[in-house]
Amino acid sequence: MTVALVTPKHEFTLEDHQFMARAIELAKKGHYTVSPNPRVGCVLVSQGKIIGEGYHQKAGEGHAEVNAIRDAKQKNPTLIKGATAYVTLEPCSHFGRTPPCAQGLIDVGVSKVISAMVDPNPQVSGNGIAMLAQAGIETQSGLLEAAARALNVGFIKKMTTTLPFVRCKLAASLDGKTAMHSGESKWITQGAARKDVQRLRAQSCAIITGCDSIITDNAKMTVRYSELGELQKSYPEDKLRQPLRVVIDSQNRLTPELAFFQQPSPILIIRTELENLRTWPHYVEQVQVTSVKESNTDNNTDNNTTKVDLKALLALLATRGINDVLLESGARLAGAFFEQNLVDELILYQAPKLLGGDGKNLVEMPSITELAKTKQLSINEVVMVGADIRITAKVNSANNTASNTHH
Amino acid sequence: MTVALVTPKHEFTLEDHQFMARAIELAKKGHYTVSPNPRVGCVLVSQGKIIGEGYHQKAGEGHAEVNAIRDAKQKNPTLIKGATAYVTLEPCSHFGRTPPCAQGLIDVGVSKVISAMVDPNPQVSGNGIAMLAQAGIETQSGLLEAAARALNVGFIKKMTTTLPFVRCKLAASLDGKTAMHSGESKWITQGAARKDVQRLRAQSCAIITGCDSIITDNAKMTVRYSELGELQKSYPEDKLRQPLRVVIDSQNRLTPELAFFQQPSPILIIRTELENLRTWPHYVEQVQVTSVKESNTDNNTDNNTTKVDLKALLALLATRGINDVLLESGARLAGAFFEQNLVDELILYQAPKLLGGDGKNLVEMPSITELAKTKQLSINEVVMVGADIRITAKVNSANNTASNTHH
Repeated sequence: MTVALVTPKHEFTLEDHQFMARAIELAKKGHYTVSPNPRVGCVLVSQGKIIGEGYHQKAGEGHAEVNAIRDAKQKNPTLIKGATAYVTLEPCSHFGRTPPCAQGLIDVGVSKVISAMVDPNPQVSGNGIAMLAQAGIETQSGLLEAAARALNVGFIKKMTTTLPFVRCKLAASLDGKTAMHSGESKWITQGAARKDVQRLRAQSCAIITGCDSIITDNAKMTVRYSELGELQKSYPEDKLRQPLRVVIDSQNRLTPELAFFQQPSPILIIRTELENLRTWPHYVEQVQVTSVKESNTDNNTDNNTTKVDLKALLALLATRGINDVLLESGARLAGAFFEQNLVDELILYQAPKLLGGDGKNLVEMPSITELAKTKQLSINEVVMVGADIRITAKVNSANNTASNTHH
Repeated sequence: MTVALVTPKHEFTLEDHQFMARAIELAKKGHYTVSPNPRVGCVLVSQGKIIGEGYHQKAGEGHAEVNAIRDAKQKNPTLIKGATAYVTLEPCSHFGRTPPCAQGLIDVGVSKVISAMVDPNPQVSGNGIAMLAQAGIETQSGLLEAAARALNVGFIKKMTTTLPFVRCKLAASLDGKTAMHSGESKWITQGAARKDVQRLRAQSCAIITGCDSIITDNAKMTVRYSELGELQKSYPEDKLRQPLRVVIDSQNRLTPELAFFQQPSPILIIRTELENLRTWPHYVEQVQVTSVKESNTDNNTDNNTTKVDLKALLALLATRGINDVLLESGARLAGAFFEQNLVDELILYQAPKLLGGDGKNLVEMPSITELAKTKQLSINEVVMVGADIRITAKVNSANNTASNTHH
């Protein structure tokens, strides 16, 4: 017997759960297209039946509530008055590119609005619900909240911390090596894992990478539509969005001839100083980001002593509508992000191989020399992707203190 | 539609599968106690019902068939004649410490014997079935063969190759590090994973280790009954068998004071030459194994240039009734086993941590410098053990050529 010590704020029925689950399914339809806005779904219910459905597909176009109301007006116009709205995120109360959704729901006469979660933006959180309540509409929130939050980890992180959600993708052998000592690294993981990375790129607002992969591997870092597999069915090629490609070049090593610059989709080159500027195509922008002097560099001659302030870079990206970034980089840049506790999630592909100690390391974190200060994660998921393993792990921010604060 | 191009040798019914599955369950009861003999289970069936069950519990005691016959004689003596025997391994045809089981089945008058697999020993394979057939008993084999083979990977490997099955246990962070550069390594994995290793030890005929863990960590490498958890229910403490502990000491560094030698269970010290012998307790034996000159050693001063011939060591262990060994060692010894393709299975515990490139490597394989020659494995299983991941992978012997043959 479980005894409830605290009376829950709202009691939700099985039907409530089913309708909100449907709203969450709808929200997912905007997964690859809606950023920088949040993924939101809405269903309108009357007499126990769904009378209208909607989701937010693209910034600047109709919000989920508006689309659900439009759907209901077409199919069940007489049932909207008195209906219940299930929406995965608190309806907005402000005029943006579209009128406030809370007002829209009031105007059509719904009698109840259930939100999965309140707006994560501390400046507007609760305002939509208050607007509804003032109009005499019954409001409830917190139904399937965890699932609703999972839809928008990037949007929520940005709204609550002004930094984007950082997902670090790495690939290695079982013994944590990314390449042989010689640098030979082709086909560490197999085709299925590499296709999976295409899906990760497609869902990200931006990709951050370093110069090395672009210069050495001639990597393009774009989404290749032909490799999206199953996703192609629900994501037509003409809607494909290329993530913003962000490349850190503190030594001005990049040149326009590289394959990376041949794809005409937005690129941001991050420099520590804007000198000796090259001429780039129109979709390439160069910006200066604060630099930090590294007190703890190793002896590698390839290593800069002046480096981009990664937190400042992330803050800049957030101001440009970037909710989440995919970090696809070598061991040093990935290590720097981890050292500074700027990574939220690790996606690690492991190939069933052993390369041996002479191979190249997965992450370099030179300032971490004590076991107690190593990075702690929690495993969220482990699945097979073809013959390779994919591990998804959350970085435990509570246990990790940024090591650069200890110098 | 599937079209059978080859008519199967035998067609088995659903009931046949169920009875053999029961025999396999019975065989597992000998999992921790029966070596060097194989794990075998047997059920006798009459009129669609099990009339007797047995399994092989301990070398020198009754085989599975004998125990099943005894069980049936007690419970259903009138039904044995004409019964069908389901046995996970072809009944033996020779006098060992017990009379041949094939003769026992003939004597009690069974009419049919179904074996999951034939005897893997090439010198006697098929003899038991032939003996039964000559007595007019119907024989079939190959029912649930894969499951039956999985019971006895060690016994089968030893019988077919004269080498034991080698299971290499390693533990590391997600980036493949076993310790910090300083050597600090306590609690890389958590309690559940360390208990799981106790189970691995308990099921192994022998453990092979190097001097370093014994001297540096003062490791005992024994099975601690109190940490066997659930296994304690089916495995009483007075039946606990300690695996043979094999330690490679080519430099005569071991001394009797070490914790390793305080537990009075058999120990084998492997030397490249039997000089400067110390005095050891009665349960410690020193043996000389052929040495090999290493042509490809690294510059580590700690590294021997004369090393034990690992294949010769394994062959020696096989002659002493060792079906399977658990390799629990540092990066160099584990790497040497992998380099020489002497490992059959990797059990890798991964802690959700990142230690960084300065940490100690999981395996050292100095002679492998090309990606094409790295060790290829296939993932058999990935599970969570507490907060850690356990990966079980088969080493793909077909794709791996022993690298020491290339020098």
